[in-house]
Amino acid sequence: MASSVRAITRNAAALLIGNELLSGKVEERNLAPLATSLRALGIRLERALIIGDDRAAVAREVRSLSAGHDVVFTSGGVGPTHDDVTLEGVADGFAVATEIHPHLAGLVKSHYGAACTPDHLLMARVPVGAQLRASPEVQWPTVVMRNVWVMPGVPELFRMKLLIVREHLIGPSQIVSRALFTQMEETDLKPLLDRAVALHPCIEIGSYPKWFDASYKTKVTFDGVVESQVEAAVEELIGLLPAGVMRR
Amino acid sequence: MASSVRAITRNAAALLIGNELLSGKVEERNLAPLATSLRALGIRLERALIIGDDRAAVAREVRSLSAGHDVVFTSGGVGPTHDDVTLEGVADGFAVATEIHPHLAGLVKSHYGAACTPDHLLMARVPVGAQLRASPEVQWPTVVMRNVWVMPGVPELFRMKLLIVREHLIGPSQIVSRALFTQMEETDLKPLLDRAVALHPCIEIGSYPKWFDASYKTKVTFDGVVESQVEAAVEELIGLLPAGVMRR
Repeated sequence: MASSVRAITRNAAALLIGNELLSGKVEERNLAPLATSLRALGIRLERALIIGDDRAAVAREVRSLSAGHDVVFTSGGVGPTHDDVTLEGVADGFAVATEIHPHLAGLVKSHYGAACTPDHLLMARVPVGAQLRASPEVQWPTVVMRNVWVMPGVPELFRMKLLIVREHLIGPSQIVSRALFTQMEETDLKPLLDRAVALHPCIEIGSYPKWFDASYKTKVTFDGVVESQVEAAVEELIGLLPAGVMRR
Repeated sequence: MASSVRAITRNAAALLIGNELLSGKVEERNLAPLATSLRALGIRLERALIIGDDRAAVAREVRSLSAGHDVVFTSGGVGPTHDDVTLEGVADGFAVATEIHPHLAGLVKSHYGAACTPDHLLMARVPVGAQLRASPEVQWPTVVMRNVWVMPGVPELFRMKLLIVREHLIGPSQIVSRALFTQMEETDLKPLLDRAVALHPCIEIGSYPKWFDASYKTKVTFDGVVESQVEAAVEELIGLLPAGVMRR
């Protein structure tokens, strides 16, 4: 099922599903590894949404995010119990039913053997028309409905599935990132940053004050797709800084 | 500015703002403490959205979330630099301008003294019509525009501001939570859970498998506003469980 050609993917959205994330019972842990993995692929994560175990809300958000982004990743709600509504919600979002996928059913049956019940086979449900994606490292495939990747909520399993994502998707170009750490307060840096931003419109410049760390006061990041342009913006700001404020 | 009467608040949404959260450069750390604090107050957090430093997107989402929820909390984008667009975005969302608030300007001036510049005063910007909320523990007030609380992104400051939230808002009733830890696989639990869910429609029952921890296999949570009803649902499920599967 693994493909040797990766699909060019410009942007992405994440839909993180689970009452437990909004009640504070469980800390959300999948957004950061997803963001990091997509970044490394050159795919821009544009928004992430956290909602509860609500089938109608999943359907509505999947429909909207799927239309607005090249690819969507859902996380959570894929188990067999009453509060696992993601696969039905994704199916509703595309106005299709769910069905038991024969390949997944085979995997479930071979895992549970004679103990396999119809409840176990709920884990082989897919929206009608979904595809399975696997990779050499990950045997249990991921369900992909149109441009929606349905990923598990358990953080260890979510991370494992990112290996499959890396096998199948790639951004249009790598993102080049640089960072400077300065001992200047963000407000004092502002006029210099404004100048660098104005002179380097293709570079995304970010400014992040550090309040509770003596090692620096403001971190400045530079992101772009052309390395020489990124380096030029970095050198521009360095040239504007007063002496002695850089952490080297 | 602190009020002795807390406003009854049923539900909430969060708007977490920052390119760095979507690029994976910085891990989101404010949702969990917000969720926990609101839960303790009996306020239901219904959705959280993470977007980049995009003034138009902030305006659009603030308008939509503000209309659909009793209260909205934004996080991030309140500094003085070019990528801090939250206050302007919130103002746009309510179709007002921003202005320098005299009380905040006084705080900024007394903090910076003779070194205070117009750039420092950007930190005294508020949407026209905004109010300030403080508490006995937190001197620097939080900007509240209609039902939108504008909170800082720096996690230590965000947590501090939650003290002000607790001073001003309260849910309609406390939420009672119980949890059972079982040695049953989630799929085997499913028919028993379905029965407990059907018999206790007012209780929110959640099922959370633990994959990489030998101490239990599935955690079941019970939430409601009437303690006796929550306890009855817990006892119902305990009565359905086979012997020896509970972690006590």
